[in-house]
Amino acid sequence: MGVTLKDVARRAGVSIKTVSNVVHGYEHVTVEMRQRVNKALEELNYQPNLPARYLRQGHVSIVALAIPFLTNPYFSDIGKAVVSAANARAYTVLIDSTDGERAKEMMVINGMYPHLIDGVILSPLALEAEDLLSRRVDVPIVLLGERLFNVPYDHVVIDNVAAARLATSHLISLGRTRIAAIGAQEISAGDTARLRLQGYREALTEAGLAYNPDLVTRSLSYDRIDGIQSMHQLLASGTPPDAVFCFNDLLALGALRALYEAGYRVPEDVAVVGIDDIKESAFSMPSLTTIAPNKQEIGDLAVAFLLDRIAKTYTGQPRQTQASFELIVRESTAGRAASPQQTSPIVPRPE
Amino acid sequence: MGVTLKDVARRAGVSIKTVSNVVHGYEHVTVEMRQRVNKALEELNYQPNLPARYLRQGHVSIVALAIPFLTNPYFSDIGKAVVSAANARAYTVLIDSTDGERAKEMMVINGMYPHLIDGVILSPLALEAEDLLSRRVDVPIVLLGERLFNVPYDHVVIDNVAAARLATSHLISLGRTRIAAIGAQEISAGDTARLRLQGYREALTEAGLAYNPDLVTRSLSYDRIDGIQSMHQLLASGTPPDAVFCFNDLLALGALRALYEAGYRVPEDVAVVGIDDIKESAFSMPSLTTIAPNKQEIGDLAVAFLLDRIAKTYTGQPRQTQASFELIVRESTAGRAASPQQTSPIVPRPE
Repeated sequence: MGVTLKDVARRAGVSIKTVSNVVHGYEHVTVEMRQRVNKALEELNYQPNLPARYLRQGHVSIVALAIPFLTNPYFSDIGKAVVSAANARAYTVLIDSTDGERAKEMMVINGMYPHLIDGVILSPLALEAEDLLSRRVDVPIVLLGERLFNVPYDHVVIDNVAAARLATSHLISLGRTRIAAIGAQEISAGDTARLRLQGYREALTEAGLAYNPDLVTRSLSYDRIDGIQSMHQLLASGTPPDAVFCFNDLLALGALRALYEAGYRVPEDVAVVGIDDIKESAFSMPSLTTIAPNKQEIGDLAVAFLLDRIAKTYTGQPRQTQASFELIVRESTAGRAASPQQTSPIVPRPE
Repeated sequence: MGVTLKDVARRAGVSIKTVSNVVHGYEHVTVEMRQRVNKALEELNYQPNLPARYLRQGHVSIVALAIPFLTNPYFSDIGKAVVSAANARAYTVLIDSTDGERAKEMMVINGMYPHLIDGVILSPLALEAEDLLSRRVDVPIVLLGERLFNVPYDHVVIDNVAAARLATSHLISLGRTRIAAIGAQEISAGDTARLRLQGYREALTEAGLAYNPDLVTRSLSYDRIDGIQSMHQLLASGTPPDAVFCFNDLLALGALRALYEAGYRVPEDVAVVGIDDIKESAFSMPSLTTIAPNKQEIGDLAVAFLLDRIAKTYTGQPRQTQASFELIVRESTAGRAASPQQTSPIVPRPE
């Protein structure tokens, strides 16, 4: 207790402002100054008193990111992007995983950590609109993803219908006609599946291909094992598809594995496309063609929205923004390439 | 401000003790009681005052887990295990990623969040022993992994020498004699590489095989791309190896990809083993034989050590414990199986 920025400034022989700049991670400090201050901070064992800082400044420079699953690579990629965006603004991010459970998501929105965090970026899976509408805590929240469009919070999404249409149109452009979809869900389970199914259907219609419900499988969750099961189901059902659009990369990687086990060639017999562009997809055998949401843009937008709310530099109506995405063509539709790094981004058509 | 457990108890018509049990997530509360309390909590907009709780109880029931990389699946698996172990003890876990940078690891050990968290589980990559020895903050810390053995903190590890010996011996048992190692590092870079190299060498010696430095490649980092580069290097160097032990699964998955690109069959031409048992390894083509550390045991042990220190139920000398591990044999050494789920755990020999 008791070591102040003033003590550190005296020890380092610099101004309090300089110490403050170093402590808050601002970049316009010379290396020499930074070293002197860090040395003094260490010698004096300076510890920022966060509750006091909160009382003084009204914020603690910490935000929380609540994601459903730590072990889903898409969400850890989003985590990395949010951390990077927040660090660039001198904010620390602490990550909470909710397992997609309503009780844990309720804890997040009802501010279990008042005075400990300045705001929350939340990717909800289980919350209903009424949960958020009945919230009376005023810690700012920014939402990610395809749920809860009708609540008064800033929201960062991608255009899932357009993304799914792009993925499906790519398969159609290869001359495929029996295009399956893996990842449909009961309407109650979530909007992501509904929107991606809509985009898939729109692309079929646009190409004059009939919608065939026998080519659409349902998945309760979106893991590799669900992709394996769905692909087995499609292969067992008489005429197998000649292409598959999977509603995320993990499903697609499972589908690739099922096709490998069953002796089908990819893409010769069945072409496969996913969504997410997780790192694994660039290295799988074959590497996976996928829709890549711009995850850094998602992180940047979410952090910018949240910090505006924290600093009250924006106090207007809730904003909703779409991050960009692109199609990354790899071996699972284009055939064998020399290296998984050889990819060609295709920018979606303007709407 | 202002809504107390007493207010909530009055509103719900239950005892303060029952409200407290619900708020703290204890399980011995009937569903009906829980619903009544939750309703009252919501109606009154109760927010736990954590700094006040800290002053009253001496703890806030939140611990931090600091890992180097969110996007390394081994660390997200460890994160999931720690969250699960902590939740079972009614603790919340917030996750901080350090990028393996010394400055961020210093922030973690010097308690950037006093009064906000009760303790830290840290997997360090860059800290030196002196950083921890000069620490004067008394927030409890438990260390994970193969660095910093000589500091006075509780520590959960696996026996890396034995793990590497088991992996290498498995390749030897298949009759392979030109066994490469991918993942060696300069001694200064870390103890994990040193210990795994030692186990590899011990297994060779035990089998009467000569150590050949040409079969050992160095990697600055342990990503898939490093595995690809190392495998290319081994394949370009005259006689290729007939087996490879990779010091983690991501390196091994990269090696599989490089072998696929170069037209080698796995395991017929080159057998491959990794360490970590990340989920991807059960589904790769071929699926990957690997050493599986018992990650839930690592999480359980780390949380138990930390909670003992927080509650002061253990105040003795620092404890170091080894979590168990096993060899999971899959297609990359055993050849094609019908399904990636068909695996046979092999328990390591007792020392």
